Amino acid sequence: MPNIYDSAYELEKAIRNSDEFTRLKDAYDAVMADESAKKMFDNFRNTQMELQEKQMQGQEISEEEVEEARKVVELVQQHEDISKLMEEEQRLNVVINDVSRIITKPLEELYGNPEEETTE
Amino acid sequence: MPNIYDSAYELEKAIRNSDEFTRLKDAYDAVMADESAKKMFDNFRNTQMELQEKQMQGQEISEEEVEEARKVVELVQQHEDISKLMEEEQRLNVVINDVSRIITKPLEELYGNPEEETTE
Ligand SMILES: [Ca+2]
Ligand SMILES: [Ca+2]
Repeated sequence: MPNIYDSAYELEKAIRNSDEFTRLKDAYDAVMADESAKKMFDNFRNTQMELQEKQMQGQEISEEEVEEARKVVELVQQHEDISKLMEEEQRLNVVINDVSRIITKPLEELYGNPEEETTE
Repeated sequence: MPNIYDSAYELEKAIRNSDEFTRLKDAYDAVMADESAKKMFDNFRNTQMELQEKQMQGQEISEEEVEEARKVVELVQQHEDISKLMEEEQRLNVVINDVSRIITKPLEELYGNPEEETTE
């Protein structure tokens, strides 16, 4: 039986060598190699993170901010290299979410059994 | 090269068969088998989750609530089986956090390179 850490390093290697990761890396490098694309992408990321932070802190998000964020998203979606990068991110995300579900299954089975959900 | 999903299932098996998980399961079963321990543990969990929810929604937590939570923690810490369970949870958590750090390293290397952090 391989131990947890050996298996984790195997999985890391599999992720690193996967088509999904290679395609993401290529898409990322393409955006980073283009100064104006890079700026647009950074701007998009920062806007997303600011809104997320506000949301997490329970702060109100104004209509102007929503509208601005919408415009930034629209802009990056029209940029071929950036929308390609976002697509590849989305694809790897699906895989990583699957992985996360698979490896947390033992814990979920332990804590999530139906009996626990009855109120007394 | 094994693919991501095969590696993830291998890792899941390694977690399920680990000493850490077996000990956690035994500790959990011991608490669940004892009606009064189970109630105390459920009460502790519910209190923790309520406070966490409030915190995440940016709601104020009153002094009374903090004091009540402190008492519940004190109570469960004095219960041998429950404190054993919490210890085992803590131990497996360390391993799971390590695993998470290991398998997200490719992404972190891609997105976290120092060049990205300079402002322009
Ligand atoms: Ca149970
Ligand atoms: Ca870079």
